[in-house]
Amino acid sequence: MVTSERIKEVARSTPSRIVSVVIDGLGGLPHPETGKTELETAQTPNLDRLAGEGICGLIDPIAPGIIPGSGPGHLAIFGYDPLKFTIGRGVLEALGIDFELEENDIAARGNFCTIDERGLIRDRRAGRIPAERSLELCQMLGEIKVDGAELFIAPVREHRFVVVFRGEGLSDELSDSDPQVEGVLPKPVTALSQNAVKAANIAQEFIVKARESLTRHYPANMVILRGFSKHPNLPSMSEVYKLKPAAIATYPMYRGLAKLLGMEVLATGSTISEEFATLSKHFKDYDFFFLHVKETDTAGEDGDFERKVAIIEEVDSLFPSLINLNPDVIVVTADHSTPAILKGHSWHPVPFLLYSRWCRPDGVAEFSERACARGSLGRFRGIEVMPLAMANALKLVKFDA
Amino acid sequence: MVTSERIKEVARSTPSRIVSVVIDGLGGLPHPETGKTELETAQTPNLDRLAGEGICGLIDPIAPGIIPGSGPGHLAIFGYDPLKFTIGRGVLEALGIDFELEENDIAARGNFCTIDERGLIRDRRAGRIPAERSLELCQMLGEIKVDGAELFIAPVREHRFVVVFRGEGLSDELSDSDPQVEGVLPKPVTALSQNAVKAANIAQEFIVKARESLTRHYPANMVILRGFSKHPNLPSMSEVYKLKPAAIATYPMYRGLAKLLGMEVLATGSTISEEFATLSKHFKDYDFFFLHVKETDTAGEDGDFERKVAIIEEVDSLFPSLINLNPDVIVVTADHSTPAILKGHSWHPVPFLLYSRWCRPDGVAEFSERACARGSLGRFRGIEVMPLAMANALKLVKFDA
Repeated sequence: MVTSERIKEVARSTPSRIVSVVIDGLGGLPHPETGKTELETAQTPNLDRLAGEGICGLIDPIAPGIIPGSGPGHLAIFGYDPLKFTIGRGVLEALGIDFELEENDIAARGNFCTIDERGLIRDRRAGRIPAERSLELCQMLGEIKVDGAELFIAPVREHRFVVVFRGEGLSDELSDSDPQVEGVLPKPVTALSQNAVKAANIAQEFIVKARESLTRHYPANMVILRGFSKHPNLPSMSEVYKLKPAAIATYPMYRGLAKLLGMEVLATGSTISEEFATLSKHFKDYDFFFLHVKETDTAGEDGDFERKVAIIEEVDSLFPSLINLNPDVIVVTADHSTPAILKGHSWHPVPFLLYSRWCRPDGVAEFSERACARGSLGRFRGIEVMPLAMANALKLVKFDA
Repeated sequence: MVTSERIKEVARSTPSRIVSVVIDGLGGLPHPETGKTELETAQTPNLDRLAGEGICGLIDPIAPGIIPGSGPGHLAIFGYDPLKFTIGRGVLEALGIDFELEENDIAARGNFCTIDERGLIRDRRAGRIPAERSLELCQMLGEIKVDGAELFIAPVREHRFVVVFRGEGLSDELSDSDPQVEGVLPKPVTALSQNAVKAANIAQEFIVKARESLTRHYPANMVILRGFSKHPNLPSMSEVYKLKPAAIATYPMYRGLAKLLGMEVLATGSTISEEFATLSKHFKDYDFFFLHVKETDTAGEDGDFERKVAIIEEVDSLFPSLINLNPDVIVVTADHSTPAILKGHSWHPVPFLLYSRWCRPDGVAEFSERACARGSLGRFRGIEVMPLAMANALKLVKFDA
């Protein structure tokens, strides 16, 4: 594997432009009746033409058999080894709700939960309380004062919330209070290193006060926290690749992730067609674009084969506007597969196509899982996507001694 | 990846013979008019027949997207991970002029450059002075005496030269004096570790005296040095593979590289046909042969599509003499692609064929980039070539606990 440190040595800035379209959860599995996947079922004349002029393959975003979460899946296709760079659970949840995390903040994922009279956890999810109840309780917990840090509490969904501690000298080397099982006491938050003692005390003080506040709010009469983490300070894409990158995404988590990698997150409307319009509008201003389509994944998670097909066709129909911009490199792929029949992320490798003037076309003239399997790129890892895109944009110099 | 340490455990010496033909820069890109690459255009009946009886694939010498320099590209196909084993710039330049580097020598790449009256670098290449001028100046600098080391200066080409310091207890952990930009002072050579202080003083003494000698030789009135390095002491191929290897190459750099890996460098004439004759002559004396064809790469770098095609055809026409020797394994590949339309090394994967009595023929009956893409070896890394060749020569035993 060529690490980002080695890429940095050979990357150079040029006027050429790369557009990477990530169709979330694109990969699928055959429909039991037709034997065709969502992508094979969809009519995609524009993507098929691009495949014919480009090169194809299948990527394992992380590694064969591994089911990528959205965070690691995206890190990989931006060239950040997801086995090396991790983003803590707390930070991911904060990104997911568009919380503006500052450099020294500590974020944790919280659950409202139910404890019995002895303090033992009866339900780790407090009966999945509804959003409006969660919001009220978060507002209530937000009134808590702790010594040495400012506190932010924000609801996520149902019983889930994010807590952020903002203060000087806080370390995130803290153990979880969430024991991950029921029938036991919440664990105390402990410092995993000497310099995390202050943060541990603050977190523990918050938990004790939260329990007091919630005592009469059964079933949400306690909180458990996990995944204490800080902004990961990943090397930016401009540092690694000498790019000026921009992101077009409608969902907060992807916008947050893009921000972590130093991308400029562009304002955009909420439809796919508005996302493509945003690309056209800003095309002159950046040399790398990440355009994220979320709806395919959502349809896959809902088990809605037909809707996933329809969204793929909609994306395809928008491609002429992108092609007319004449980018030097076009990449179309996904962060993972989400087969409708599995209703969730899966390990299946993801179709990949790259078009550039300098590729060596491989004769694959259809963009689908099985056509891509015959492409000249073969089967490869997500972290190799960026070096390939950079090379095809003539943005890499020779690797020498 | 199976490291050379692990290969060592399973390699054994047998009478079987491997011939590895490296056609430098072989991979290409389609001609805009015909849509065919150099290799696809060339008539190669012998290579096609070998492909039909053997197995094919595409290699990424280093990794997808990475443009291999000649050094790392060759290291890879001899099984030395180029991301782990690096050969310093100074050593590579010394190899390139057939300088006999001793174990403790420190080599650096030097430039004659132009400085102004304040000492600022005006031209890092001294106007690319001609070879005869460079030779005179090198001879002059060769007269310099420094305390604690013997000094060798040899011209390379135009403003380039190699300086070698030979002495006891010299470390190559030295910073460059070449600032890589113009308009600034040359940097002092500094010791990057405690035990490099002696070497830093010697290098600095040389630079000061060189400046004095060159003061009236405008535009070549100063030197800048970079890439201080020692013989890398790579494990030899006989150590790793239990082979008795020989190299047939006409260009100094490849002969030098082969020597670094412990190959016996055979005397040969300068034409490709003489190289094949050398193979026949010495075939009984070694069990591994590296036969290097440089001219394909040179034609590619010159952007001469037709000449590259003609050289490929010449190489093909010489194959019957090789096949008649009846080697147990024949490998045909390259260290990188050099598409004529790009006029330089490129990242495109390289066609690979392996013939042996024990391979499982894959039905690919043409030796070309796109035919190889359909080969059963798929797309793989350069460092996997040697284990494959060794296995097909029945030179590997079972890998067990």
